[in-house]
Amino acid sequence: MDKEQDPIESQTDVLIVGAGPSGLMAAYWMARFGVNARIIDKHETEVFVGHADGLRQRTLELFDSMGFQHRVLQEGSISFEANIWVPGPQGKIIRHGIMNIGKVDESPFHNTRLNQGRLERFMLDSIRETSDLEVERSVLAESLEYDENLENDPNAYPITVQVRVRSKDESNPSSGRKSAAESESTRNGILPDKRTGLVEHRKPTKTKVETIKARYLIGCDGAHSWTRRQLGIPTEGSDTDHIWGVVDVVPLSDFPDVRRVCVVTNAAGTILVIPRERNLVRFYVPVQVCEAGATDRFDRSTITPDVIRSRLQAILAPYSFDFKICDWWTAYQVGQRIATQSTKGNRIFLAGDAVHTHSPKMGLGMNMSMQDGFNIGWKIALSVAGALRPDVLQTYALERHPLAEMLLDFDRHWSPMFTERKDNVSDAKAKEIAAIAGMFEDFADGWKVFYPPSCLVWKSEGQDDGPPFARHMIPGERVRPAKIRNQADGVTQWTTRVLESDGRFRILVLAGDVLNPMQKRRVEILGQVLAGKSELGASPLDRYVTVPGRFKSLVDVFTVHTSPWKEVEFFDFPEALRPFDQFQGWAYSKIWCDGPCDVDRYCDGAAYEKWGVDRVLGALVVIRPDQYIGWVGELGDVAELTQYLDGVLVKKPTDGAKLPAENLKIEEGYAAE
Amino acid sequence: MDKEQDPIESQTDVLIVGAGPSGLMAAYWMARFGVNARIIDKHETEVFVGHADGLRQRTLELFDSMGFQHRVLQEGSISFEANIWVPGPQGKIIRHGIMNIGKVDESPFHNTRLNQGRLERFMLDSIRETSDLEVERSVLAESLEYDENLENDPNAYPITVQVRVRSKDESNPSSGRKSAAESESTRNGILPDKRTGLVEHRKPTKTKVETIKARYLIGCDGAHSWTRRQLGIPTEGSDTDHIWGVVDVVPLSDFPDVRRVCVVTNAAGTILVIPRERNLVRFYVPVQVCEAGATDRFDRSTITPDVIRSRLQAILAPYSFDFKICDWWTAYQVGQRIATQSTKGNRIFLAGDAVHTHSPKMGLGMNMSMQDGFNIGWKIALSVAGALRPDVLQTYALERHPLAEMLLDFDRHWSPMFTERKDNVSDAKAKEIAAIAGMFEDFADGWKVFYPPSCLVWKSEGQDDGPPFARHMIPGERVRPAKIRNQADGVTQWTTRVLESDGRFRILVLAGDVLNPMQKRRVEILGQVLAGKSELGASPLDRYVTVPGRFKSLVDVFTVHTSPWKEVEFFDFPEALRPFDQFQGWAYSKIWCDGPCDVDRYCDGAAYEKWGVDRVLGALVVIRPDQYIGWVGELGDVAELTQYLDGVLVKKPTDGAKLPAENLKIEEGYAAE
Repeated sequence: MDKEQDPIESQTDVLIVGAGPSGLMAAYWMARFGVNARIIDKHETEVFVGHADGLRQRTLELFDSMGFQHRVLQEGSISFEANIWVPGPQGKIIRHGIMNIGKVDESPFHNTRLNQGRLERFMLDSIRETSDLEVERSVLAESLEYDENLENDPNAYPITVQVRVRSKDESNPSSGRKSAAESESTRNGILPDKRTGLVEHRKPTKTKVETIKARYLIGCDGAHSWTRRQLGIPTEGSDTDHIWGVVDVVPLSDFPDVRRVCVVTNAAGTILVIPRERNLVRFYVPVQVCEAGATDRFDRSTITPDVIRSRLQAILAPYSFDFKICDWWTAYQVGQRIATQSTKGNRIFLAGDAVHTHSPKMGLGMNMSMQDGFNIGWKIALSVAGALRPDVLQTYALERHPLAEMLLDFDRHWSPMFTERKDNVSDAKAKEIAAIAGMFEDFADGWKVFYPPSCLVWKSEGQDDGPPFARHMIPGERVRPAKIRNQADGVTQWTTRVLESDGRFRILVLAGDVLNPMQKRRVEILGQVLAGKSELGASPLDRYVTVPGRFKSLVDVFTVHTSPWKEVEFFDFPEALRPFDQFQGWAYSKIWCDGPCDVDRYCDGAAYEKWGVDRVLGALVVIRPDQYIGWVGELGDVAELTQYLDGVLVKKPTDGAKLPAENLKIEEGYAAE
Repeated sequence: MDKEQDPIESQTDVLIVGAGPSGLMAAYWMARFGVNARIIDKHETEVFVGHADGLRQRTLELFDSMGFQHRVLQEGSISFEANIWVPGPQGKIIRHGIMNIGKVDESPFHNTRLNQGRLERFMLDSIRETSDLEVERSVLAESLEYDENLENDPNAYPITVQVRVRSKDESNPSSGRKSAAESESTRNGILPDKRTGLVEHRKPTKTKVETIKARYLIGCDGAHSWTRRQLGIPTEGSDTDHIWGVVDVVPLSDFPDVRRVCVVTNAAGTILVIPRERNLVRFYVPVQVCEAGATDRFDRSTITPDVIRSRLQAILAPYSFDFKICDWWTAYQVGQRIATQSTKGNRIFLAGDAVHTHSPKMGLGMNMSMQDGFNIGWKIALSVAGALRPDVLQTYALERHPLAEMLLDFDRHWSPMFTERKDNVSDAKAKEIAAIAGMFEDFADGWKVFYPPSCLVWKSEGQDDGPPFARHMIPGERVRPAKIRNQADGVTQWTTRVLESDGRFRILVLAGDVLNPMQKRRVEILGQVLAGKSELGASPLDRYVTVPGRFKSLVDVFTVHTSPWKEVEFFDFPEALRPFDQFQGWAYSKIWCDGPCDVDRYCDGAAYEKWGVDRVLGALVVIRPDQYIGWVGELGDVAELTQYLDGVLVKKPTDGAKLPAENLKIEEGYAAE
């Protein structure tokens, strides 16, 4: 500590430790809601090459809702299939068969690879679009105090963290991250819009030491998490660690599948081949297994690119293999371990590798980490903004911890495929690999998330389906993406983009066929209720506190009908479904059609079918800010819908309005005709 | 002139005057080829709001080949249909019917609007990716001298331009362009990554006056082109000018089609409605007709947003119309006029509005201008780099001038629709409008470009089709876009992106079905010829000069076969079609399959059908750097292909190799089996 200066004290609502993928996802939400937040990182620069790269569909769907998926699609490397190679009858490795790794039409996106640095850049750009929040780099957290007496007061600052700016001559923490100046060859691989990252982004620091008081803290500081250690939270898991070598190279090889995702296995070992952007291919090479947490940790210096090259040559033989360009490489030791808790009093949270560490395969780690950061991010941002009930924060651990366990379970099945040596590898092994990959497919792709019942997910324990009138609208799972057509302008759009990650809960009005007079009447009655104009009770749209400068209501309404697009008009729908703003006019973006569009093959009028919803009668759904389904009902169930929202959102202090009457008598619509 | 300083003299290969859409398109090519070029603009800042906004499919295809179409797609406003509104039986305007404005599957893209400023930003970003070329703003060209004696020496500098940096207190040339400081409300509409444009980008200017000697000059300086006036090139055209009012507003209206492209016509007048990004809608309102070039030009001050509002209210009645947000508005006077020439000695070129001015409708103007800049850009860049024969520059006027004439012809038919007052407007008028729009549809969309025969386009005068074996590969038209699948990695991609605008001529080898043994033999013989390994003559790939630091050969080879993707391997194709590089390895990006892909509905195996090519026998095509078809032949026609390239590219000085023998005896492949 600099003895000539007194430490400065400051306050922030949210302190994020670590600006990797999970930390930036959380920061996205702070930016979106204008939360007073800071994000610090011990490293001097952004990541430029290497590191994590695998992107699963669900993550890409989130990116779409955040507005930068198009950049990932433009730069990333996509795969539709994976292959398994095993020794054939003559001992030469042969392609065992193609394994589809994308389900047709389950998502607009496909398994993609793009280096972590690019993703971080996209997230940083997105953050800068809505706020001045910048990552403070070269900043180390040095001490953490937590006052449990303040835990239950949402307005208190129970967390005290002392941070210090690292001096220039302190060495960077190791992680294979090189400074750009150090490696010109690295810089050549950096895209131009990334180069600004070479300059440190840091607020002017008046002192080298600062004491930060925070209401919430998110520890996104990786496998060796400082935050986790400060909290004394232990990790549990496997007794063995695996040592992996990884290279990102431009291969010089006649192996036919070097540009396809594959597992290659023979007596010499098993490797994972992952094609990437810019002609690069990543090779994961297991090197050995050792005792977990042994004090004499594995000596990384014994693994070099040349050692990895030799292993690859042995496994890919008789095909040739070599490289001259190596963009990045590393060797690391990792086991399957999980933190026993991912929160302290729901004021401090761990996310990403700080909670779960495992082998670097199947592109799961970074996805899980980003989804962690996204999940805790929106919940804290809305809480700090005063809009979300603080007890909703309990759902973070409830929802994410079981997934971390599932991830480790998968890794425990998957990892031995690479490290168990067998003298006779054969078809049987290929089948075993395919079986394990298949078993976890839905989980890996992120479609099934298995979020349990909570105030955020209204369903019965063990309920696997949605209700009969909306069978595939399953609370706790994400809305299945579909391409729909805007009623006002005719533009087609994926729901992943329409369901923008802006922090709002959305009432999805599946209006059914409004050309049916009785159904039209039901929709009109619903419109009256949502407008607060009926005698049936107050509108859920006016019931909850607002966030100044953000939205008029944190509950948004969004309608998809099934009548033919050309046979209805935007103005046919009740005003509450397309409200008027004195500056912005009518809300043209709110009414959509599930019908085919001649010029867009993906807009095929199959959304209701994907959602398991009757095309005449429709349904009513609440979608959480992260596109997961919170509640499902019929058009008349606004009372229950309101109860759901009451459990999640903070009501306006002036609110004395009663709940809308049960059943809303919407069915009277039928009688009235 | 500053008398205390002597003017500085400098040299540049290419001087571009005007940094609007056409100037930036030309600059893109200078950046791509590292040409010593400068681009000056008299305005102090970039464009931020308003101005041109319509984007036609062909332009979007070019953007895709330049690498930024994904940004346009993310931000722009798209339309699939247009509507015509006419007075109905009761006098109230009614929708006459929907007019499709996009052909299914003709292009991956659709009619899109995005403001000119965003496009300029994307082009500037693209330029910065490959060069340090920056727009020098606030720079006025003041005198132009041209030495005709030097005209025929490509290495001489026949052009002398004196430029001056405008002082801060000189008023901006008028054009509705506001400085950002002047209008905070304007700034609020600017996206964050655009704000850097508020700072002037300018090389350090040592003097306020500079004399620039240039080998080539491109005048992209708009309707009142300074360059054109210096050259004394007159314009010809209509005797009348039209006065238009234009507003970009967020409409407050119950007119049902306010978010759809439409023409609305009644006794009060005719308007064009064009929805845009960010809830904006542009309204074009004809105000009056006056004598062309009258010295007492129309007094713009009589047209205000309030005047335009009143006109719109009258024409849209009985629907309501108003606005509170007006992003941009202008009033201007324009006729249909065309410069009599678009070049001076093929050393000075005019592009965009400097050549053709017309009414601002149908989103044609900016597209035509950008395509002008693109056309002259690649030709000059390759000439200056020493790779293109200087006489190819003659094709600029040959190809673009007739299109300018066609544009004016269209406008002469189209414009009166808006300005002729009729007391009884009816269905007949709607039909007339639809007929004119339909007549020019292919032209407007930019698919048919009608480039005449030249050294760049080998076809017979009047030849409307391609040869019988490649019926829809028509020299002088663009390659019809298709989605194809990469053989090595299985990724699907539109040809518009695969045919990257990198300046190379591409030999498109339509290899047909290589599972057919005779066809495979033909492809192998072609491979030997392209490798220069046969006794049939030198390879066209090694025949022409290279551009240092750019490509090994300005002739690229790119193969699309029709065999099922899973039944052939990348390595089944001759090496010349997938060459090896000692650092980058095999050229995996060169072999593609025209076959269906389960997970991509647009990759449907219909490319050969779109191109009119036999799926077994294939064809051979030369694609120009702008994706237009230059030459079409059969697989054996390498001799003629080489003759085509000889007429365009500069041969290596050491080249003494004879042409490949005619017919290449490729047909022997059949005999040999």
